[in-house]
Amino acid sequence: MKKEQEIYYTKDVPVPETPEPGTEPEPWGKTRIIGERVPRVDGYERVSGSAVYPSDVMLPGMIHGAILRSPYPHAVVKSVNIEKARNMPGVRAAISMDSPGADLQWPYNKEVSTKLFDPRCLFEGETIAAVAAETPYQAMDAIKAIKVEYDVKPFVVDERKALKSGSVEVHEGGNRLKTATHERGDVEKGFAEADEVVEKTFRTECEIQTPLELHGCVANWDGDRLTVWESTQGVYSVQSKVAQVLKMPLSKVRIIGHYMGGGFGSKLNASKYTIIGALLAKASAKPVKMFLTREDAYIAVGNRPPSNMTVKMGVKKDGTLTAIQLKGNATGGAYPAGGTALIDWLFRDLYTCENVRTEMTDVYINAGPARPFRAPGHPQGSWALEQMMDMLAQKINIDPVQIRLKNIPKVSQAREGNPPYTSTGLEECLRKGAETFGWDRARKEAEANNKKDGHIKRGVGMGGCVWIVGGGGPPSTVVVKYFSDGSVNLNMGASDIGTGTKTVMALVVAEELGVKPSVIQIENADTGTTQYATPSGGSKTVPTEAPTVRNACIDAKQQILKMAAEDLGLDVEDRDAEDLRFEGEKVVSKSDPSKSVKIKEIKKLNKRGLVMGIGYRGPNPENKTVNPFAAQFCEVEVNTRTGEVKVLRFLGAHDSGRVMDRLTYDNQVFGGITMGIGFGMTEWRVLDDGQTGKMLNKNWHDYKLPTALDVPMDMTCVPIELHDHEANNTGAKGLGEPVTIPTAGAIANAVNHATGLRFTDTPINPIFVSRMQDKTRAAEKAGKEALSKEARNKEEG
Amino acid sequence: MKKEQEIYYTKDVPVPETPEPGTEPEPWGKTRIIGERVPRVDGYERVSGSAVYPSDVMLPGMIHGAILRSPYPHAVVKSVNIEKARNMPGVRAAISMDSPGADLQWPYNKEVSTKLFDPRCLFEGETIAAVAAETPYQAMDAIKAIKVEYDVKPFVVDERKALKSGSVEVHEGGNRLKTATHERGDVEKGFAEADEVVEKTFRTECEIQTPLELHGCVANWDGDRLTVWESTQGVYSVQSKVAQVLKMPLSKVRIIGHYMGGGFGSKLNASKYTIIGALLAKASAKPVKMFLTREDAYIAVGNRPPSNMTVKMGVKKDGTLTAIQLKGNATGGAYPAGGTALIDWLFRDLYTCENVRTEMTDVYINAGPARPFRAPGHPQGSWALEQMMDMLAQKINIDPVQIRLKNIPKVSQAREGNPPYTSTGLEECLRKGAETFGWDRARKEAEANNKKDGHIKRGVGMGGCVWIVGGGGPPSTVVVKYFSDGSVNLNMGASDIGTGTKTVMALVVAEELGVKPSVIQIENADTGTTQYATPSGGSKTVPTEAPTVRNACIDAKQQILKMAAEDLGLDVEDRDAEDLRFEGEKVVSKSDPSKSVKIKEIKKLNKRGLVMGIGYRGPNPENKTVNPFAAQFCEVEVNTRTGEVKVLRFLGAHDSGRVMDRLTYDNQVFGGITMGIGFGMTEWRVLDDGQTGKMLNKNWHDYKLPTALDVPMDMTCVPIELHDHEANNTGAKGLGEPVTIPTAGAIANAVNHATGLRFTDTPINPIFVSRMQDKTRAAEKAGKEALSKEARNKEEG
Repeated sequence: MKKEQEIYYTKDVPVPETPEPGTEPEPWGKTRIIGERVPRVDGYERVSGSAVYPSDVMLPGMIHGAILRSPYPHAVVKSVNIEKARNMPGVRAAISMDSPGADLQWPYNKEVSTKLFDPRCLFEGETIAAVAAETPYQAMDAIKAIKVEYDVKPFVVDERKALKSGSVEVHEGGNRLKTATHERGDVEKGFAEADEVVEKTFRTECEIQTPLELHGCVANWDGDRLTVWESTQGVYSVQSKVAQVLKMPLSKVRIIGHYMGGGFGSKLNASKYTIIGALLAKASAKPVKMFLTREDAYIAVGNRPPSNMTVKMGVKKDGTLTAIQLKGNATGGAYPAGGTALIDWLFRDLYTCENVRTEMTDVYINAGPARPFRAPGHPQGSWALEQMMDMLAQKINIDPVQIRLKNIPKVSQAREGNPPYTSTGLEECLRKGAETFGWDRARKEAEANNKKDGHIKRGVGMGGCVWIVGGGGPPSTVVVKYFSDGSVNLNMGASDIGTGTKTVMALVVAEELGVKPSVIQIENADTGTTQYATPSGGSKTVPTEAPTVRNACIDAKQQILKMAAEDLGLDVEDRDAEDLRFEGEKVVSKSDPSKSVKIKEIKKLNKRGLVMGIGYRGPNPENKTVNPFAAQFCEVEVNTRTGEVKVLRFLGAHDSGRVMDRLTYDNQVFGGITMGIGFGMTEWRVLDDGQTGKMLNKNWHDYKLPTALDVPMDMTCVPIELHDHEANNTGAKGLGEPVTIPTAGAIANAVNHATGLRFTDTPINPIFVSRMQDKTRAAEKAGKEALSKEARNKEEG
Repeated sequence: MKKEQEIYYTKDVPVPETPEPGTEPEPWGKTRIIGERVPRVDGYERVSGSAVYPSDVMLPGMIHGAILRSPYPHAVVKSVNIEKARNMPGVRAAISMDSPGADLQWPYNKEVSTKLFDPRCLFEGETIAAVAAETPYQAMDAIKAIKVEYDVKPFVVDERKALKSGSVEVHEGGNRLKTATHERGDVEKGFAEADEVVEKTFRTECEIQTPLELHGCVANWDGDRLTVWESTQGVYSVQSKVAQVLKMPLSKVRIIGHYMGGGFGSKLNASKYTIIGALLAKASAKPVKMFLTREDAYIAVGNRPPSNMTVKMGVKKDGTLTAIQLKGNATGGAYPAGGTALIDWLFRDLYTCENVRTEMTDVYINAGPARPFRAPGHPQGSWALEQMMDMLAQKINIDPVQIRLKNIPKVSQAREGNPPYTSTGLEECLRKGAETFGWDRARKEAEANNKKDGHIKRGVGMGGCVWIVGGGGPPSTVVVKYFSDGSVNLNMGASDIGTGTKTVMALVVAEELGVKPSVIQIENADTGTTQYATPSGGSKTVPTEAPTVRNACIDAKQQILKMAAEDLGLDVEDRDAEDLRFEGEKVVSKSDPSKSVKIKEIKKLNKRGLVMGIGYRGPNPENKTVNPFAAQFCEVEVNTRTGEVKVLRFLGAHDSGRVMDRLTYDNQVFGGITMGIGFGMTEWRVLDDGQTGKMLNKNWHDYKLPTALDVPMDMTCVPIELHDHEANNTGAKGLGEPVTIPTAGAIANAVNHATGLRFTDTPINPIFVSRMQDKTRAAEKAGKEALSKEARNKEEG
């Protein structure tokens, strides 16, 4: 018996007290397993290859889809002929603009709806036709046999040009979609009060999500019911979109996404390919696997919009910010669908400042639609803001950390009513981060090194951030089945997008019920069989779902306590059950610890086989806001001969509330930094502005993602755990997005520290570093020459 | 908008009033769709072949298992050599008595546990070894290559011989397993008070379930988790057994059984093959399909035990029963696991009688284990009891219907405290059945026909019954997801064993929520993702699950009413929501019908996407019993030259409470009668008692199931609907089993009516009819000769 208990139950710390029915429990005090380094509960499946990702799904009789896409950034399709394709070997279905379903309306966003196959192609990659064949190669061959007549139109693929008068118009009525402004205080007054004012223009290039698993699905009809295995972050949002487009009842659209290989925001919802997959399956009466090619994924299913930001900021000598002004533009392509907004958020909310004015214009161009990309807008804004903070610090000659500490926010300034944060860890992130990193010493050592001759320069930089959301919230429901043998089945709707959601939720169950993670089985992300959850995005999965899972466990515990009370001869109605506490493998009387019953021996539980605990996400605190904060620190080495920048080490200090699993926490921080390195140093969508308007680097060779060689071995994660009683009943806040916000700006600041060069544009790659150095040297030379000329003049004069 | 509503909502009758939270609702009054003839909601899938039964499951890399079974009814395995088999083409795994897992304990029942591969083989078909190979044929070939040395023992395969002293002993300690007795009143006194006493010995042969889909599973390991697609009536019972045998946490055993092709009680739980499938999958690291052959299914996975019953009954001239006595035996084979009990129930409970004594002895023989078979014990008992009732009626010269009407039970006599039935429809079944059948006229016409010369005789017979359970009860949980577009997902644990469970539950949802069955999607029978249900058996699925489904719908409705109250500006806390009623596509104020809001426009519902209604099965009524009753009537034609008996027509009058779906109701009645015809007339396990002890007819050719030609075209179903307020909140009682109980006895009575012959033994097939006629003719001839001799003697004397 003892051995069996060891298999099933965790032991060291008593299981948390079960709160009164109907009350929202406090976050745990001491924990038994939460916060430990626990490997992924689905690690075996992921590593062994037995995990079935949507791209692994194989169904009997399954065939393969392929999509023909517009090769032009702007064209009108005059005719499409699919007859030849339809008769190619292995082809089971071919559909295009005159096929059933082709005129279904596809809403790219709230404003703009197109047909599924629309003759008006406004970006390279718009869908024209599709086929399904017995092999993927047959499908690709058939695509090539489709004859299309295009009326090719002039295009505009640079948002700066798109704003100029006389530009090609992407949509009728001009390329200016909308301008969002925020204003508080009086910026002019702020600039007047400043001791120093700096103004600078920044640019960030377009970054592509390009996740490891391509975008796609397997679609299968069973009578009037459609089942789609979709690589998605949110099965319920896909269900809703598919039902809307196909005009089907929600109940008849089942979306399954047990595993998915990365999305970073680009898989928050269905895409045209989802509907095309469903139509091909209908037309062929076969299950259809409809996955994009890597090339298509680069152009058609999302990106982080490029941005142009002119920032002007004023500061007093003591470091107090007096004014922040942002003016700029960004583009979500031909059909912006989220992603252009939020570039301004950090300017509005991160540092305390009374006088703020932001104005960002959203512009149409002939390029693929933007989609949310890990911390939408924030890395762009951070790139400019964190460099501006350093420039201001240089002007008034104070330390970069100190100027930020001077302007720590106490309330959310950008929100109506200026609600306080439930916890604000920015100061601790800055202090603890700098201390652990050895900020002062590293800065001094770098400066000492740079005074020496030599082409290897060192620099140390940093940046801070807040993330606009990250507190999660309702709705969410979870069901926990607690079996009579003490093992547990957890049923939730949330996707685990690779971040360890399943592992974290298993720890919540383990913590609350005192069972080991190995006896917890999780079912998730299936609209047909699992509970409801909003998509996994916005860094809200843990703060939304963990409290829900905890509530479900508490519900199960309360039922078990009642059953135990019956066995112990206590009066359940008289609430004698309140005297009982749950201790993992048994239920014990608080007043008389000799009275106890083993869970496995509770009569009613054994008879019933299980209890079912239901959890709902409780409400968020009123008039407060829940946000994560962070500060990141890095050290770089710049080879002034080759222009190469090497990131030597990075440290992320993060206030994301309670650490649930320290291992996944670290992984998130290191992953976010890695992505930030890509954004700041390697990644860049190159559109052929001159001749074709097409993307020139739509593959993993030419679009450079950071690899292991581009990322420092030396990465440190410093969690800042303020016991946040108000955020939710676990104390956890979002982590997935803040981890990537300040990275690129911190690198730019470090490079400036190393070289004195100010990189206003991403990416800081060897070519641009070399160019900038050449320019600077030329300028210096010109300056020296001018100076010597002046000197000569003086002498002569 | 109107069109959309028509698609989603049923209209004619208002949706039932939503009861107060926490109260158990009354059964519906007027219904909108319950009771209609609604085709199966999964009819398309079943007919088109797209329904994936466990035997249809195909997994990537799946291989096929086969089992070597003992060819002897009694043997000890001395050695097994699987090496040759292991090296046969395509073989991926071979396991036997010395393989890992082979010594796992398999509990055939509570008393007897064996090893998975046990050297002691007590019946033909016991498992010896197993292999898995790439094709089923390779697996079968490999099985033949296994070398086994047997120590063949003497056997006993007839329970009557097994009881004799000196018989071979199946288990040590004798073949008498146990004797169950019931006694009330004083039978001797009863016989003394009787005007007529009849005594007769009856026998029923062993019947095999032999369902269309063979027994089997597909087993797949994913790390430490086992998933089994099992052809089963109860996924949770299989989960429990598999976890117990493999010593795994329940949560790590997932059993899926979305469809299944018949079980009739023999698939209520796992079998050895389930564990063998799991072990082969483990050994080969592949998914394994482990289905039995038809031959194996005949000998190893269940049967209806043969029985021998000596019955003595007394009756007064007015038809009042004075005493019932039953003494007999039956055998569940080598490892009885349910099925031998309940043969006595009808004697104890069906007809009112003060003096009853029953004694049934359970006997071991060297044959496959019995398992529950549609109405365990009852058809056997009914065969004897209903013939006895007719014989008594003949003795006192009253009509068979009348003698039964004379003894209608008011309370359950066999239960402690004699609880009354919530409803007793036996009288109505007899009266309404006889009336609709045209009993009196048919009897007279048959008698008139039989007075004429000719070899075609006609007979009309009947029988009544009660079924021991059929009221259902807790535990059961169900989740209903009501989506914001008015479509519904129903999640329940119950298996639909072909009886239409899914259809009936869809009707409950449709009735309660006012939506059309076409927008209801059902997920069921998956321990990983669906709710808890006990196995589908005992005719309790509808009376257990339908009330639970209804409660889940009511829970969802109550949440929607609250949301609607918010939109209508009513005070939810003040319980203004009580003023609202749910009307399918909208929520309306009772006091002011102009106040209403469309479901699809309720704000919170749209924001949340859905509401989740949870339903639990309420308790059964205290001190009452819920049972279904029935009476069946038939007309037969006997060809006295060939011995052929043709069933001309059948009528089933059934009190199973409310008719949920009239179409599935009729189908159950006709299916039950068909199976009863098989039991009474065609089916018969033939064991080679003389030489080998093996089953001689283990295939569909030699074991004759009734086909369309053996079943009358003319079948009538007469539902007796007493509005049972107490049974549960739907008023439905069990139907699946009572439909087959009285059939065989009614046929025997009809044959007797046609021929005067009394068939005490099943089956009434042409061979036995001819033999009986020959015997009777010989006896008659002998009698006539004796008579004429006596006359001669008299004359001479």
